[in-house]
Amino acid sequence: MARVSETGIPQDGGSPVRAGVPEHGRVPKYYAVRLLVTELVDGLPEGRVLPTERELAERFGAARETVRQALRDLLLEGRLRRRGRGTAVAGAKLEQPLSLASYTEGVRRQGRSPGRTLVDLRSWPCPAKLAVELGLGEGEPVWHMERVLWADDERVGLESTYVAVERAPRLDVEFDPDSSFYSYLRERGEAFAGADERLETVLATPREALLIGTPPALPMLLIHRLSRDGQGRPLERVRSLYRGDRFSFTARLERSDPDS
Amino acid sequence: MARVSETGIPQDGGSPVRAGVPEHGRVPKYYAVRLLVTELVDGLPEGRVLPTERELAERFGAARETVRQALRDLLLEGRLRRRGRGTAVAGAKLEQPLSLASYTEGVRRQGRSPGRTLVDLRSWPCPAKLAVELGLGEGEPVWHMERVLWADDERVGLESTYVAVERAPRLDVEFDPDSSFYSYLRERGEAFAGADERLETVLATPREALLIGTPPALPMLLIHRLSRDGQGRPLERVRSLYRGDRFSFTARLERSDPDS
Repeated sequence: MARVSETGIPQDGGSPVRAGVPEHGRVPKYYAVRLLVTELVDGLPEGRVLPTERELAERFGAARETVRQALRDLLLEGRLRRRGRGTAVAGAKLEQPLSLASYTEGVRRQGRSPGRTLVDLRSWPCPAKLAVELGLGEGEPVWHMERVLWADDERVGLESTYVAVERAPRLDVEFDPDSSFYSYLRERGEAFAGADERLETVLATPREALLIGTPPALPMLLIHRLSRDGQGRPLERVRSLYRGDRFSFTARLERSDPDS
Repeated sequence: MARVSETGIPQDGGSPVRAGVPEHGRVPKYYAVRLLVTELVDGLPEGRVLPTERELAERFGAARETVRQALRDLLLEGRLRRRGRGTAVAGAKLEQPLSLASYTEGVRRQGRSPGRTLVDLRSWPCPAKLAVELGLGEGEPVWHMERVLWADDERVGLESTYVAVERAPRLDVEFDPDSSFYSYLRERGEAFAGADERLETVLATPREALLIGTPPALPMLLIHRLSRDGQGRPLERVRSLYRGDRFSFTARLERSDPDS
């Protein structure tokens, strides 16, 4: 079965062997059904509810279990979403810029309403590894603030912020958890000069899936951030987890890298 | 069961209800086993082979199917890797900078040997959508070059490059597929001035899993790149797919964003 990439150039077919890799032309049954469902979805507007598993199974002459596996793939990738007991066509993924702008600003730029719900805010004795990252002594008090991230009425992520209590002694009484922590820091005169980020894909843990309301083991995008103040000292450590089916990240690269 | 995050601060336990989210303390059995296996893995050096599923099942008093699910999770996340019929402790993920440096340069900086194997190189009439992106007329000839990416003796990704034939008319006879395409362009006097990238997580298709040698439906990191020449014109469109269990991406952000 031919497959067309997002550029429109077919990616399958051709000679039987390419560079030692057999292009045998056989595709697992569930994937063939996935292609048929994808074709169906491509022709439907966002929000349209799909026919039931049984109806799709009849239409495509496939077992319901096969249809379910194909739908599961498209749910994990964000082409479809749950709608009550059914399945609907999902909108495009949010595109969040990899920049020093906060989550709040990034979501607003896309015309969505950002929100944050506090899960936990308390101070802990700083563990050894985090102390090294934050330039603190082991055992010095550090805030852990955990918030669920919202876009409109949808939970889309989970963010843990670690910052020395010394940097923001009254965080627990002054700070509105449904606002931007960076704005709060700026108002307090803390310069926010740069950050190192590392982005990877992980599976949601049961607790994370519960907090974000996703199916367990959904692929997530995890961003580790260590930000610096104007003097180059570590300011905060952040662990941001975003639904892989709802988010993508963008970067604009300019020619300033001397090695490239 | 308490869970400790990578910062060392426990993420579970505490009050029964936090911000309306039940912290009920119950964890699926496979996840409890996953925590036990993670603890075991943390104490072992890279490359060490784990006890068999049966041995782990006996040790943890769990069903083999439960152990298998826990191991599958840790394989997908890259903590473990297949070693023959067994399972071994994996090394850290590669950290590839999001920069204009090529794959080749990024991998070399980490002391690994980059390699590329050609899957396909041929010219096609440019489809409409790609034509818009590349600033070409629909139907103008465009190269599609597809290469498997290697790090040492391991297949780690799959890259599709689309470039107008006019830009590199002799690509098929001049270019060594196991070298850097950017070096080739530079040698031909093509300036490479910047790029827009978009990064998301997707599942490997059966064909991609076959080419890269991964289990099907492994979460992958997909980077879409559109690069520009010195005049700001589109130069090439690239679709790079990296094993999510083997790669992470890093970015250094500086305070130059006027909106932040």
